[in-house]
Amino acid sequence: MADPVSTLPVGIEVLAGEDIQRIAAFAHGEGYKFVVPPLLKLGSVPVHDVGRPLPASLNHANLVVNGPEYAQLSIGSISPWIDLESSDQTTVSNSQILVQQQIHWASHIGLPGVIFHCPPSGSVFSFARSVAEAAGMLSHTQVYVRVSLSDGQNDAWTRWNAIRMLARHNAKIAVALEINHELPGDDTLKKWLAEPVKMVIVPTNTFVANRKGFPVLRKRHQVFLQQLMQSERRYVIASADFESIHPSGTLASYREYLEHLHRTVPEPDTINRFADGYHDYLQLPLQPLMDNLESAIYEVFEQDPIKYQQYEQAVYRALIDRVPEGSDAVTVIMVVGAGRGPLVDRSIRAASDANRKVKLYAVEKNANAVVGLRARKQEVWGDAVTVVHVDMRYWNPEEKADILVSELLGSFGDNELSPECLDGAQRLLKPNGISIPSQYVSYVAPLSSSKLFNDAAAFGDEEHMETPYVVKFRSVFSITDPQALWSFDHPTKSAIRPQGHPHFNVHNNRYSKATFSVSQDAVMHGIAGYFEATLYKDVKVSIHPETHSKDMFSWFPIFFPIRVPLFLPRGSEVTVHFWRATDTRKVWYEWCVVPTINGVEVVGEASAIHNPGGKSYWIGL
Amino acid sequence: MADPVSTLPVGIEVLAGEDIQRIAAFAHGEGYKFVVPPLLKLGSVPVHDVGRPLPASLNHANLVVNGPEYAQLSIGSISPWIDLESSDQTTVSNSQILVQQQIHWASHIGLPGVIFHCPPSGSVFSFARSVAEAAGMLSHTQVYVRVSLSDGQNDAWTRWNAIRMLARHNAKIAVALEINHELPGDDTLKKWLAEPVKMVIVPTNTFVANRKGFPVLRKRHQVFLQQLMQSERRYVIASADFESIHPSGTLASYREYLEHLHRTVPEPDTINRFADGYHDYLQLPLQPLMDNLESAIYEVFEQDPIKYQQYEQAVYRALIDRVPEGSDAVTVIMVVGAGRGPLVDRSIRAASDANRKVKLYAVEKNANAVVGLRARKQEVWGDAVTVVHVDMRYWNPEEKADILVSELLGSFGDNELSPECLDGAQRLLKPNGISIPSQYVSYVAPLSSSKLFNDAAAFGDEEHMETPYVVKFRSVFSITDPQALWSFDHPTKSAIRPQGHPHFNVHNNRYSKATFSVSQDAVMHGIAGYFEATLYKDVKVSIHPETHSKDMFSWFPIFFPIRVPLFLPRGSEVTVHFWRATDTRKVWYEWCVVPTINGVEVVGEASAIHNPGGKSYWIGL
Repeated sequence: MADPVSTLPVGIEVLAGEDIQRIAAFAHGEGYKFVVPPLLKLGSVPVHDVGRPLPASLNHANLVVNGPEYAQLSIGSISPWIDLESSDQTTVSNSQILVQQQIHWASHIGLPGVIFHCPPSGSVFSFARSVAEAAGMLSHTQVYVRVSLSDGQNDAWTRWNAIRMLARHNAKIAVALEINHELPGDDTLKKWLAEPVKMVIVPTNTFVANRKGFPVLRKRHQVFLQQLMQSERRYVIASADFESIHPSGTLASYREYLEHLHRTVPEPDTINRFADGYHDYLQLPLQPLMDNLESAIYEVFEQDPIKYQQYEQAVYRALIDRVPEGSDAVTVIMVVGAGRGPLVDRSIRAASDANRKVKLYAVEKNANAVVGLRARKQEVWGDAVTVVHVDMRYWNPEEKADILVSELLGSFGDNELSPECLDGAQRLLKPNGISIPSQYVSYVAPLSSSKLFNDAAAFGDEEHMETPYVVKFRSVFSITDPQALWSFDHPTKSAIRPQGHPHFNVHNNRYSKATFSVSQDAVMHGIAGYFEATLYKDVKVSIHPETHSKDMFSWFPIFFPIRVPLFLPRGSEVTVHFWRATDTRKVWYEWCVVPTINGVEVVGEASAIHNPGGKSYWIGL
Repeated sequence: MADPVSTLPVGIEVLAGEDIQRIAAFAHGEGYKFVVPPLLKLGSVPVHDVGRPLPASLNHANLVVNGPEYAQLSIGSISPWIDLESSDQTTVSNSQILVQQQIHWASHIGLPGVIFHCPPSGSVFSFARSVAEAAGMLSHTQVYVRVSLSDGQNDAWTRWNAIRMLARHNAKIAVALEINHELPGDDTLKKWLAEPVKMVIVPTNTFVANRKGFPVLRKRHQVFLQQLMQSERRYVIASADFESIHPSGTLASYREYLEHLHRTVPEPDTINRFADGYHDYLQLPLQPLMDNLESAIYEVFEQDPIKYQQYEQAVYRALIDRVPEGSDAVTVIMVVGAGRGPLVDRSIRAASDANRKVKLYAVEKNANAVVGLRARKQEVWGDAVTVVHVDMRYWNPEEKADILVSELLGSFGDNELSPECLDGAQRLLKPNGISIPSQYVSYVAPLSSSKLFNDAAAFGDEEHMETPYVVKFRSVFSITDPQALWSFDHPTKSAIRPQGHPHFNVHNNRYSKATFSVSQDAVMHGIAGYFEATLYKDVKVSIHPETHSKDMFSWFPIFFPIRVPLFLPRGSEVTVHFWRATDTRKVWYEWCVVPTINGVEVVGEASAIHNPGGKSYWIGL
């Protein structure tokens, strides 16, 4: 991470009536990186119908940033005293004209951003329309909507949400979030982390004085700000009258305090360190059955400190259970999909620890990985291991396995076709043989994240809204806890038709639904998917948030987008329907989402079945 | 219209167990144009888990239409005894396989259509998924979903609506509507007229026997069927056991009765005769200010029997009011936008009837129309009329008008820029002068029409979902009565800034909203727009459905689509927000739609502001 002090962009608000030249110089001297002046001088133009018509255009006397000198250092505030929602038509017309004039000016002199002040109450329809219009007129200038967290527990979010919906999720419109003395509940704060908050405004009176009289923030404020600081954002010290309101310190003290908070953001844990640079980044899931994995991918996953430890433990426990102590019986272990051999190593170690005799097969279809396996055999394993280059689904060995070990799980459990592979490999197993893993369960939860939605929508096509992504979540809000969808057990008890039979895979079709209760207003942008796998008895690996295997980083969650964001009011329910479908060549998921609002099931646009027939996304067999 | 007898496609349902060859020949002999057989023979394959697995593929013995001979004459029924919604996974898998096998077969032999039987109760999620999958697999075969009107007052529609939403308005999926003995209320019947009902199924037991013992339908059934017969649809006589259940008549009697109904469909009224071929057809509104109208367009509109009658009456009444009887005063009448001169003719006739002296100016910007006006002057009008070739907004005549007559109204009132033109022409009017029209009001109502929605969506781009269309409605359901949105008055009392001033047109901006109560479940696809204009005092022209000027065909309604269909449950409200926006070069509308369900305002995808900044549609000044 780069030096946090130099990278935290902290600016300062300029009050109406101040001289921009003097203030910009002063703010710079105090270490602020930019200023936030009003665009128009207060009272310099009439907004209400006072018999004085608006001038046809603005002039220098009306404008605060009236030339290019300070343009790059200024984020302009659209006059908060305009009234786009007035019931008086002249006031509305004048306000619209004044907004347009300011936007045109901001664009002309090249301001990096402009800030609209969300009206604290009443309608936001015409306000949102103007914001959207401004976003359409500006190409390089960021549009911020300033909302205040203190406007009731939930009002600020509700108003922002309406604006965002009205402006159709325009990615050029961001939130400038004002953090006041009173903070709403943790759930509301969490919800804001899933919103495009690109500016954080901290008025000086949000600060309290510490024992030495310097401005500091209270504990909950600190925690929330440090969460915000995990992503790139601007910070603004607001309502600053250029005299410190705290007994000690100077104007620079506010900036210094934010920089201090930034420096002391807690260190990321193992998983987040591993995920650095991948947070909220949409990755297409692997297709390890259809495509051969590259060596670098094996390399990465083999570094997981937890996963292989759990596998070793599972093999150890299975050996102990299966063979009495002191027996000479040889247990046949087949590692199917052996890759570069980590599960072979772990099985050997488990056998040694358990003091049981084993015979090992390393079965792998990827010719490139087999090269490595053969080298390992020659250099390390010797006769204990037989390397077989074959697709496990079609192999016919001379002897059968006591234990079948595989690592074919994806973020959603079955999404890398573990069921199909292990069905095919089941012939290799003795009738009372053990499969490690023995079961996996897929979980889903409704998720809010304007970033993930906008990133998927930015592709501009339908395919990307019907494709699941592997994502390390950060700017997301989990609307409720996950629920189990379906499971697969190995060895399966279903009748397995032979490969090539037109219905050979239908027993791996699934349909399930889960209904979630929504405890606060939220916008759903998609479905988070997780899995929990039982390797052997109580030896498990999990990426379910509540049971996540500590420090295990091999799997990020999966994200299924929905085509249109779905507003879910508090007290509503939402039902997620999910299908796992198969044909002779592929496997795919279909999903849809149906809200129930005050008991009324509302089958709407998000309810359209996504990815019908696997048209946008499928996994090749 | 072509001979109705030969064009009504009536087919007959074939019951399971019948021999297709024998039946097809017999049905043909009875005058039926096609047959509706089941695709699979009953009981020929197992659907439940009875220890007997499904065969890998169908064979001739399973299939009713087992060769191409009758394919073109057959609409195949997907076995109604399959159960896609079973809680038993094997039954579901078997049902899915059986559906796929039938669909593949139907596609292979080239059936014109297949019919899915909507389950009469329970979930429709996996059913809808299969229907959508089938629609995706079939290219030339129409997919019908059979629903029965008798499934409760509203259930059938609710179930169809869920299926249509889940299948995302797939235009390849149509309704096969079964008309039973009991009909639901008129509102429900009306709603079905807005749905893609491409097949109407009438079971023989829906018929009653007339005095002579022949099968006939009761009055309400007749009316509903004749409404359905206004558009192209297939008809099927169902549950026919090939013996008439009515004392007299033969199997042909049912077909003959439907043909009789078709022959006796009431003659269309003047407006519908005029609109023949344009029902439910999306036309882009005219841009008469920016573009010059063609002669043929003038020709069509001059045929209106009502509009010019009303104008003549308005001029007559204005002259009577303005000039005392017997006075020698000369009233200056300017017809602005005179076109080919119909309003000049009418003004002359009104003056003659009123016995008042007038001096007429025919003002027209379209050079081609002016050629015709000059010819009319030379041949008919003489000195009574002065023809002026000029844009009324920029003309500076030597004298001013007592009466300004214009016909600049569009379907939405102001949408052909009547306000802007008349503002510009207002200088021509004496201070106490009269404008005909003196006022016009725009009305809106939430509208349901899957056809209009699908036609707009079929363009496959955003622009066409943000553009209003002029449409003669037929397959639509007006969810509630219209409400007034805004009005324009002439002469206006607003301060008019000169043309060229950057804000010259802001007084013609409008914002308004209207909230509608929804009395039954419906899907909104857009907004119907109408206008009502006061020409002079109580002389009006209107296309508002409740006050529509009888036989006036000059204006069809306007239709503003919404991007996504919106489900509105009974008891909900929906608010339509509308803006009329202007800049120096153009005028445009923006609109959005917000439902309130059980008191909860649900700002969703239909709430996104449509056509922001006029990006998809605008009217040039």
